[in-house]
Amino acid sequence: MRNPRGTPKARSPQEVAAAIRAAAQSHVAGALAGLISGYHPIDIAFAMRELSGEDRAAVFELLDAAASGVVLEEVDDEISEDLLEATDEGELAEIIDAMPPDVGADAVSLLPEDRQHRILNRIPDDEARELARLLEHSEDSAGGIMTSDVIAAPPDVTAQGVIQHIRRTDVHPEAMSRVYVVDDQRRLIGAVDIAALINARDDQPLQKIMEHDPLSVHPETDQEEVVQLVDKYDLPSLPVVDGHGRLLGAVTVDDVIDVLQQEATEDLAYVAGTSAEDLMTKSSLRSARARVPWLLISLAASFLSAAVIRAFSGTLEQAVVLAAFIPVITAMSGNSGLQSSTITVRSIALGMLKGVSLGAVVLRQVPVALVIATVCGVVAAGAGALILGDPSYGLIVGTAMFCAICVGTLLGSLVPCVFSRVGVDPAIASGPFVTTLNDALSLLIYFGIAAGLLQVLHS
Amino acid sequence: MRNPRGTPKARSPQEVAAAIRAAAQSHVAGALAGLISGYHPIDIAFAMRELSGEDRAAVFELLDAAASGVVLEEVDDEISEDLLEATDEGELAEIIDAMPPDVGADAVSLLPEDRQHRILNRIPDDEARELARLLEHSEDSAGGIMTSDVIAAPPDVTAQGVIQHIRRTDVHPEAMSRVYVVDDQRRLIGAVDIAALINARDDQPLQKIMEHDPLSVHPETDQEEVVQLVDKYDLPSLPVVDGHGRLLGAVTVDDVIDVLQQEATEDLAYVAGTSAEDLMTKSSLRSARARVPWLLISLAASFLSAAVIRAFSGTLEQAVVLAAFIPVITAMSGNSGLQSSTITVRSIALGMLKGVSLGAVVLRQVPVALVIATVCGVVAAGAGALILGDPSYGLIVGTAMFCAICVGTLLGSLVPCVFSRVGVDPAIASGPFVTTLNDALSLLIYFGIAAGLLQVLHS
Repeated sequence: MRNPRGTPKARSPQEVAAAIRAAAQSHVAGALAGLISGYHPIDIAFAMRELSGEDRAAVFELLDAAASGVVLEEVDDEISEDLLEATDEGELAEIIDAMPPDVGADAVSLLPEDRQHRILNRIPDDEARELARLLEHSEDSAGGIMTSDVIAAPPDVTAQGVIQHIRRTDVHPEAMSRVYVVDDQRRLIGAVDIAALINARDDQPLQKIMEHDPLSVHPETDQEEVVQLVDKYDLPSLPVVDGHGRLLGAVTVDDVIDVLQQEATEDLAYVAGTSAEDLMTKSSLRSARARVPWLLISLAASFLSAAVIRAFSGTLEQAVVLAAFIPVITAMSGNSGLQSSTITVRSIALGMLKGVSLGAVVLRQVPVALVIATVCGVVAAGAGALILGDPSYGLIVGTAMFCAICVGTLLGSLVPCVFSRVGVDPAIASGPFVTTLNDALSLLIYFGIAAGLLQVLHS
Repeated sequence: MRNPRGTPKARSPQEVAAAIRAAAQSHVAGALAGLISGYHPIDIAFAMRELSGEDRAAVFELLDAAASGVVLEEVDDEISEDLLEATDEGELAEIIDAMPPDVGADAVSLLPEDRQHRILNRIPDDEARELARLLEHSEDSAGGIMTSDVIAAPPDVTAQGVIQHIRRTDVHPEAMSRVYVVDDQRRLIGAVDIAALINARDDQPLQKIMEHDPLSVHPETDQEEVVQLVDKYDLPSLPVVDGHGRLLGAVTVDDVIDVLQQEATEDLAYVAGTSAEDLMTKSSLRSARARVPWLLISLAASFLSAAVIRAFSGTLEQAVVLAAFIPVITAMSGNSGLQSSTITVRSIALGMLKGVSLGAVVLRQVPVALVIATVCGVVAAGAGALILGDPSYGLIVGTAMFCAICVGTLLGSLVPCVFSRVGVDPAIASGPFVTTLNDALSLLIYFGIAAGLLQVLHS
């Protein structure tokens, strides 16, 4: 087996995949092995999704344990599962053993349960126990993204002593950004950044240079909160402790970047009414399967709009021209609601609304709602009068626009907050279901006002 | 002046702000100074947006240069500008001089031009030149987010030699994650991670342990590409070189996290049709100002929908019941278009579509479009026949739904790609303007089919 040793070169996945495909088809002995030995394992991982299942398997077989680990970590779960399934258990145990524990646990979690047990049995006891512990935590929690691979030392060890310890043991580089100081019960009492360690005198004990009682989280802390803390305080890594304050592991900054990318994708996917899988898969069927449920739910919601219009068929027959402004009212109520819900969803994600009451969140939006509703109401009234050729229609359209935008804006900030408080992902509030319900509400306002005003004007 | 020395404690900004407000109002000498000395500067920064201008100024005056720098870095530009304006130039020069160069340059860029010059004149020549150079780069480029504070050493220096050099000089901790190796022309030839440095033997020269020709970018490289590279290859920092390969600085991982948060906010803001400022400001007027232009643009676009319906007023008068499905068609065409545009926008942001042709992107969506259009078309046809009480209306609604969803899905993937190629932010394609144009198009399809089928059915 040859290990890819190439350095990162900003190659595109398509480019790497094309070269691999050509080498595989050439049937020249060693051509594929020679080629991939020149690539960085991450470049190979990124090319995997562009390759056929057969080419993937051929490439994966040529990688050593370390490179295989990187590839398994980087590819989508769909591809990872295929590769894991095709690899024999002895080799798999070797690959997983070579991975940082948090990454290894992610890989093991993709295996069927009986295979998980057999693999763990082939791994040295200490590490197998570690993996089993990591597997217990929920994927979206601090415990699920932390690594147990941390450097911990007692407070009386010297800076020089820790550096020598690091040299002797085989720790992953990501674990080296911060050394944790623990007491004899392994309770976390301090932290020393690698910078402080290098700047310290050789004989200084850790307790003289450590930051006391560093910020820590519990394994069940949500990953969004972990990201907020690491981002806010620019931490190189965030320790995870159990209920007794004992150090379990740490979340490192590279994991935080992954979570940020994943959460950004998920939030956008919710707004769009699909799932992150839609983005990652190349299968049209999987794409469609991710989208159809949301579309059917919002189709059902849109029948409410149809029902509202049917209910006002008398009004509509009296003035068919009013139909022309149906899409104007629904679009604007939807757009203003989406503005307000998106801002609220993002504020929640950034932790800006912690400790703020529901009332205060909505109240802040009242002046905003009044300003934009007035501007749009006036413009719509003018346009309505002109397009429909009657000032009384302008009055109806303008008043309905004003009310619909006020309602859209205020509900847009209220709904995500309520969702977040009852444990539903607030991003769903910007999604198609809520938006389509908003349509029906705005039509109720529009035709309610139209029916009322037409009666007044014609009496 | 007292420097806040408290450790990070996951306090909420509201909590810190309330304590500061109480201390400021108590008028007890030293109460405020005593309080803030217990907080981490970042906690003070986060509390700033909850405080009145007066309290902000009182707090800021009590901070030393280092803490002031952190606060200026973390608060929104709006507040930063106010604080900078109120601080005298001598003190400001001291604060900016104490900041890492990239952060200092950001602060200076917020000052009016004449003040920029006076401040730079008060800062030691070397650093002033550095700041002036950083100020030249566009804010969204590698040059705009890099720090010039990097450790660079020739290839024959030993590991021990570099560590001693680091101890002697006062580098910011973020710059220590990676040491860069340069030749006598300061051209970048290698990189050594801090982990490799610690693991090396004291007398090993850097050239023996360095990674050769590390991945680097130019100052004008877009920050999104920088983020993609750091994320893809898990780099602790990414070097920036000029056209001759000479090392200018590096983008560190903490800056990458900031960019990720900022880009996620911006992308969501575009989808919602507002700006990131809307999120950060507490002023209702600024919120409204961010939202109104988008609403007016989409209001104008929605008049197109009204015009389409007016153009088909003959068809509508012939069958007023068709009005009931106007919001159903627009909602579903909009929802399916948004799914497809959001997935495409995110794929572009993650660099997944590099080197893929426009045709290939759209072609991939064809089977997805056909599946979801068929499912929704059949359901809509059934519902149309039932709700409107006539199978021929079901046929109209179902056919229109099928066509509108196909068009929405395909345009949803095409438009962001086209935007991206002509240099417009693709996220705008998921925004209200494009969505509202989509409404008009789907109505044209709906009424076009209705007019055609009604003629055929009634002849």
